Amino acid sequence: MAEDVDIARPADAPVLDRLPMRDENGEIRPEFVEKIAHAIHEVDTPMLRAIVAELHEADLGDLIAALEPDDRVSLVELTGTDFDFSALNEVDDTVREEILEELGPETVAEGVRELESDDAVELLEALDEKDQEEILDKLPPEERDTLERSLLYPENSAGRRMQTEFITVPPDWNVGQAIDYMRDTPDLPERFYEIYAVDKAKHWQGAISLDALLRSRRPVPLADLIDEDRRRVSALDDQEEVARMFGKYNLVAAPVVDTTNRLVGVVTIDDVVDVIEEEADEDLKALGGVTSDEELSDSVLTIAKGRFNWLLVNLATAFLASSVLGLFEGQLEKMVALAVLAPIVASQGGNAATQTMTVAVRALATRELGSNNAYRVVMREALVGLVNGVAFAIITGLAAIAWFRIPGLGVVIGLAIICNLVAGALGGILIPMVLERVRADPAVASGTFVTTITDVVGFFSFLGIATLWFGLN
Amino acid sequence: MAEDVDIARPADAPVLDRLPMRDENGEIRPEFVEKIAHAIHEVDTPMLRAIVAELHEADLGDLIAALEPDDRVSLVELTGTDFDFSALNEVDDTVREEILEELGPETVAEGVRELESDDAVELLEALDEKDQEEILDKLPPEERDTLERSLLYPENSAGRRMQTEFITVPPDWNVGQAIDYMRDTPDLPERFYEIYAVDKAKHWQGAISLDALLRSRRPVPLADLIDEDRRRVSALDDQEEVARMFGKYNLVAAPVVDTTNRLVGVVTIDDVVDVIEEEADEDLKALGGVTSDEELSDSVLTIAKGRFNWLLVNLATAFLASSVLGLFEGQLEKMVALAVLAPIVASQGGNAATQTMTVAVRALATRELGSNNAYRVVMREALVGLVNGVAFAIITGLAAIAWFRIPGLGVVIGLAIICNLVAGALGGILIPMVLERVRADPAVASGTFVTTITDVVGFFSFLGIATLWFGLN
Repeated sequence: MAEDVDIARPADAPVLDRLPMRDENGEIRPEFVEKIAHAIHEVDTPMLRAIVAELHEADLGDLIAALEPDDRVSLVELTGTDFDFSALNEVDDTVREEILEELGPETVAEGVRELESDDAVELLEALDEKDQEEILDKLPPEERDTLERSLLYPENSAGRRMQTEFITVPPDWNVGQAIDYMRDTPDLPERFYEIYAVDKAKHWQGAISLDALLRSRRPVPLADLIDEDRRRVSALDDQEEVARMFGKYNLVAAPVVDTTNRLVGVVTIDDVVDVIEEEADEDLKALGGVTSDEELSDSVLTIAKGRFNWLLVNLATAFLASSVLGLFEGQLEKMVALAVLAPIVASQGGNAATQTMTVAVRALATRELGSNNAYRVVMREALVGLVNGVAFAIITGLAAIAWFRIPGLGVVIGLAIICNLVAGALGGILIPMVLERVRADPAVASGTFVTTITDVVGFFSFLGIATLWFGLN
Repeated sequence: MAEDVDIARPADAPVLDRLPMRDENGEIRPEFVEKIAHAIHEVDTPMLRAIVAELHEADLGDLIAALEPDDRVSLVELTGTDFDFSALNEVDDTVREEILEELGPETVAEGVRELESDDAVELLEALDEKDQEEILDKLPPEERDTLERSLLYPENSAGRRMQTEFITVPPDWNVGQAIDYMRDTPDLPERFYEIYAVDKAKHWQGAISLDALLRSRRPVPLADLIDEDRRRVSALDDQEEVARMFGKYNLVAAPVVDTTNRLVGVVTIDDVVDVIEEEADEDLKALGGVTSDEELSDSVLTIAKGRFNWLLVNLATAFLASSVLGLFEGQLEKMVALAVLAPIVASQGGNAATQTMTVAVRALATRELGSNNAYRVVMREALVGLVNGVAFAIITGLAAIAWFRIPGLGVVIGLAIICNLVAGALGGILIPMVLERVRADPAVASGTFVTTITDVVGFFSFLGIATLWFGLN
């Protein structure tokens, strides 16, 4: 792998053949990054231009992320028009902002002009308004207007994700006219999967997929091929709703209409895949107590600050749980085995509740859990809590008796575990459902509430039952 | 919403216009399900056939899930050839298996014949081999061979996900010939986004996207449009790798080749979206201690059994942690405040470790964390642990002093928190990395190891430091 592959291939082959970017596991070869860094320091412009032109934007993004901060900016500057700015959408926000600031509005505006509108919006939306303005000011009026209009749509809306380049045809054309139109128009979108029929005022009439066009003879009227029922989205729809629709109905593109049913853009599946991954990322991180904007390239202090709040909330609930232990100080002193076993009751409840909560959060996110099956699912979770509660009451009870040789302790811990697993199950399912109902994100907030319940119920039931059973008052 | 909409629309409108399936929130209207159930009981075949023909397969799947088990089978039987079997791929595995078993191999084989190969494989792969055989036996030899070949590929491989219907052309044709071929061939795949150039032995030559075809005039040779560098996948590639490639390079379809570079199928983006959602689902559930095959329609006992194992492992680790408390029984008796505060130390460490672990698991899954940045990320996490450790040492220490009026207790709990947050950070990042290295799934196993570390280190450091500080031996 470390051998110098430059010699093995002919000199006129593509640069990437002689100097492969990735090893067989798909990881970037350190030698590759070094060569590029070397070329940047040596100002070897022809070699850099050749590499940058050959790389896919996604690979170019990975290369940028792997370079030192100063080299990143130099690479963009040295390669000029060969540099595809959509590669900057592939790197972390922090890295992108650094680069864009260093480059200055003039250069960025040049790069933005080459992008499809959705990529341009993605690049601009991370910047603050002042920087956006500076860049937009350097664009020709028409391009500026389009981007400004897209940026007016709310964040995470279909309007922000759509591209404004698309092909429209009058519904009374035939297949031949549509094909001739595409052959004669030089400035078509980079990739497209369907064309749209609109009336003179740009009102949506229907979609025609390219495969439908290609199977039909030239005289066939488009009206025969138009799918009027094609699902479309409103520019104000949330991207998560749009992604769910794409997933459900297997779409590759969806027309975006404004409130008057005029076609204003197209959302394509590649943007939707990004949304799906983003949303999965957010839910996973939220359940783990990490803010969704934390990135691998963030500094130690940024990350520590981002995680601090969640830990602070958790500390408060931990003190709340411990204050329950504090209520029973006298009993703990009399029977220290209770102090040793109490965390087990809390922990089993917490884990069972987390299982339920995970399922609930996921089912709410995918809309599998709704008002039509809520009652059944809540009952089922309570029963699952009861079944596993009884199972672990027996196991834990026997283990406690074997350890401390106090039969009553087995009964007490068993009863407490049943209480706590049922309470955890109910908390695990009801809390996310309530949060969803009040329009809070169940993934973000459920965890704290749920483990507070299982800690408090676990300690209270265990020590309360022990007080009664052993007469410890 | 509850008004009877039947009267408002003309009788010749599509049935769904008069009887909408969903309310404005996209949830299925209970009245709709009732009407369908009623029609099933009344054997109102024309109405059922009309509804089933109008519904998208995804909506038909949702309708089936909402019906009572007996009605589901009746609906399929009553609507016969109008029923699209791909709707069965939209429901939970348990529901699908029940229906397929009730229907009998003859009817299922009829339905499978109408499906694209990838949908047929998806329907069959959930069944056990005996049932598969019975159904395959009822198919014409050619269709049976195709499906059997696909089912020979390993589970979760590209070979299982691909459809075997695709369009190939000789590389020496021109645009006009390709278009004429598509116009003249009646049996084209249902949807397609590109066509493929292959030689006489079916060896891959390149891909031609439909938009490239449509922008070009008839005499243009296909050779000018062929993308030879198009990313393709091997039939044995794991679906997760395939999904990552689609996401990275914004593909809508990818040709699948066998070991001799012969084109054997095509994976399309709609299947990949399913894979992405499946994988996100698996990671999320694994982190929450739920097996990935748990479904909302499972019975109480199935679910309780599935979750039991994880809780059992957790119980063992909880006993391990409590045994550390047991080592310090004497100290706990002398100073009961230690018993009250110990869970706080464990809990803060556990939550900080979970944050780190969540980020690590996600970064490993997306390949953002690899050998080239491992050292940097590990160091960063350790530092984040230290920073937040110091912050919470101060907060918790002051709170402990305020509560118990013992200044030394604040110092002890503070030091223990620093130890535990650093230990948790290291465990949270290193354990997933080691699991990934030994080819275990980090999402499934990390949680147990990590919280065991923070429980044990938390209890041990707190009580150990307390013993030294207060001379409690």
